[in-house]
Amino acid sequence: MVSMLSIIEAKKNKAPLDETQIQFWVDGVVNESIPLYQSASLLMAIRLNGMTFEESWLLTKAMTASGDRLHYDQHPIVVDKHSTGGVGDKVTLVLAPLVAACGVPVAMLSGRALGFTGGTIDKLESLDGVQCELPEPTLMKMMDEVGWVNAQPSSRIAPADRALYALRDVTGTVDSIPLITASIMSKKLAGGATHLCLDVKCGSSAFMKTESSASELAHALCRVGELGGVKVGGVISRMSEPLGFAIGNYLELWEAVQYLKSWPQSPLASLIEALAIRMLLMYDPSISDPRAQLMNAIDRGAALESLKRYLAFCGGKKTAVQHLVEDDLGWGNARPVLAPKDGYVDTIDGHGLALDALALGAGRMTKEDRIDPMAGFMLRVGIGDRVEKGDPLMHVFGDRAGDADPLLLGRHFGIIPQARPATSLILASVDP
Amino acid sequence: MVSMLSIIEAKKNKAPLDETQIQFWVDGVVNESIPLYQSASLLMAIRLNGMTFEESWLLTKAMTASGDRLHYDQHPIVVDKHSTGGVGDKVTLVLAPLVAACGVPVAMLSGRALGFTGGTIDKLESLDGVQCELPEPTLMKMMDEVGWVNAQPSSRIAPADRALYALRDVTGTVDSIPLITASIMSKKLAGGATHLCLDVKCGSSAFMKTESSASELAHALCRVGELGGVKVGGVISRMSEPLGFAIGNYLELWEAVQYLKSWPQSPLASLIEALAIRMLLMYDPSISDPRAQLMNAIDRGAALESLKRYLAFCGGKKTAVQHLVEDDLGWGNARPVLAPKDGYVDTIDGHGLALDALALGAGRMTKEDRIDPMAGFMLRVGIGDRVEKGDPLMHVFGDRAGDADPLLLGRHFGIIPQARPATSLILASVDP
Repeated sequence: MVSMLSIIEAKKNKAPLDETQIQFWVDGVVNESIPLYQSASLLMAIRLNGMTFEESWLLTKAMTASGDRLHYDQHPIVVDKHSTGGVGDKVTLVLAPLVAACGVPVAMLSGRALGFTGGTIDKLESLDGVQCELPEPTLMKMMDEVGWVNAQPSSRIAPADRALYALRDVTGTVDSIPLITASIMSKKLAGGATHLCLDVKCGSSAFMKTESSASELAHALCRVGELGGVKVGGVISRMSEPLGFAIGNYLELWEAVQYLKSWPQSPLASLIEALAIRMLLMYDPSISDPRAQLMNAIDRGAALESLKRYLAFCGGKKTAVQHLVEDDLGWGNARPVLAPKDGYVDTIDGHGLALDALALGAGRMTKEDRIDPMAGFMLRVGIGDRVEKGDPLMHVFGDRAGDADPLLLGRHFGIIPQARPATSLILASVDP
Repeated sequence: MVSMLSIIEAKKNKAPLDETQIQFWVDGVVNESIPLYQSASLLMAIRLNGMTFEESWLLTKAMTASGDRLHYDQHPIVVDKHSTGGVGDKVTLVLAPLVAACGVPVAMLSGRALGFTGGTIDKLESLDGVQCELPEPTLMKMMDEVGWVNAQPSSRIAPADRALYALRDVTGTVDSIPLITASIMSKKLAGGATHLCLDVKCGSSAFMKTESSASELAHALCRVGELGGVKVGGVISRMSEPLGFAIGNYLELWEAVQYLKSWPQSPLASLIEALAIRMLLMYDPSISDPRAQLMNAIDRGAALESLKRYLAFCGGKKTAVQHLVEDDLGWGNARPVLAPKDGYVDTIDGHGLALDALALGAGRMTKEDRIDPMAGFMLRVGIGDRVEKGDPLMHVFGDRAGDADPLLLGRHFGIIPQARPATSLILASVDP
């Protein structure tokens, strides 16, 4: 007889759990027949004693099956991207329309901001009228009409993951590779993906502190993907600074538009390019020059058109979309933060900036907080840039920009007399 | 800032917890400000990552301080006994009056039966009128008038242990030596003991399966006792069969009386003797012949008088106490279980017998069940005894004795053609 106590005992004694045990647990989590304290005890036992790839896959499977699963039946290949996140991460906003403009069906489910983490959905909804919480049939229609899907998952997508994630968050069991893997993969499978392109971040402010832990997670995702029939690949990238120049919902959407318009060279552009090339090759390994396809989609305006079509589909007002494309941000009204001395920008504390952006209304402290879509920062410098005393390091935007203390904000920038050699954002590639 | 999450993180990462952290946890358990799922996660982290003796002592101290603490101010030395339990364990019922009759102040707090485990309090209360749930001032009076104390602890004794034990029971975290140690020691300290004599059982049906795990627990109790100023010593004993011949509340009380009357030689008598000698020497290490003192207390009737005084103090009716002392159990009405063949008794399955006794009303399935005080078994044989087919192996007592199936009950006895060499119950001594 399976019981929750026997499952806890098994994992406590380092025995692998079988499908019946994992299914019993996941069912009990969803129908709330298993008390939270028993799940908490099992989560800690998993965190400390681990899980095999097989167990992690069984958990993924059960969590996926705990809710609805999207199927894009017209498309035998549907590519998704997963990033472990970072301050100013607008990769999805550029990558999805860019890759879709090359004919690749892309389906992603994204989240909202909470705490210092940004939310892709909030960035998209910063445009007047846009609403990304859509019923499942509308997502099928979105794939047909827009060519890609990005939406907030309904509560019927992997509800077991939703419940377990909330519990992990308050029981010290977030940092478990098999649990992270199952959490990510269950949502990807439920979202209809057949291929998954990873961007696993590492660095002191990332969830994975070291390249070896990032690569361990990437490896687990590949192996569990393999067991579940999902092809997984991607890159491991460094999270040492904000991704791009914008931090803030509308500002990031605006920055994404700049990439889609003219593809300015930058570390962020290189990262997106690497991911986009992978996604194209996942869709069709025979493509000979994927980079040329991407640049062509930018040059002929197809990538920008794809984003505009998406925003319009989600209710974005025509004038708002047009304004976004033509906006020059009105820098005159923004508050500058100036370099306190001459030198080279050596560090930019993304975590510190994110917390300050949050305080200015760019994010939510609690689920109920209202976001000021315009609030945030536009960096004017990147790592390695030469600055002179009085040069703008960044500009502060939003209704509460007046509350910001430019001197304090300036401290998030480390300026040193000599530049250090530049390093690439991309540290390693991840292959199945 | 101490938070429950930071405490969980610390233990997850194998850091020892400090006094502030342990106190924060215990306070939060008692005032229910910490959710059970967080305590469950920490308990599993402790179960898997362990605790130092120092941590276990800090936990003991905090759990003791979470409630009342008894003080027998007239007595600088108060001796307690702790047994990890066993089927038919009536050691307390013999040991306490015997040792007290030699002038040693003994204070014990005992529990009630639940599931297949017996409860000393239920055994005592099987006598008409006896009531062992007594307010704390009455216990002081009991020490003065009876010379020893045994009672059910009030809910104000180590309430943190009460709450944590209930949670450990349902989260697979019972089998943790530092948690067991803190649980035992907090109750002993709260009960007023200055010296503790251990009887740690080991064997396949005991909580500690091997002699090495039993000795690990004994060592932890000694070390934690040392840190808390309690002298701890005792024995490790084998739990391979029921302790003595009686299984059942009144039957065990009756068997205890037989020992106090005439000290029949038996493995149980040897075990009690070893513990009693230790307790005498804990009280006064200069005693030259402790065994002689014990036998003298039996011979002159002082030990039996001590039990009678206790039962009377707790409300036992004079006629009931007198009947207990003179009772011959009326074997004629009991149902015999007969040997199915000739041979030697090689095994007696105490666990199986306990479950069957429970089904006949000797214990409680749930906290609310009523116990039939007369229900149970009287073994007529011990390990190593020669039997012939048709000899009684035991007798079944109680209102529901008629429901018992003698053939099935007989299967709890293993009978083999040749006797195996006898072994002692006592495996090792435990010294501070």
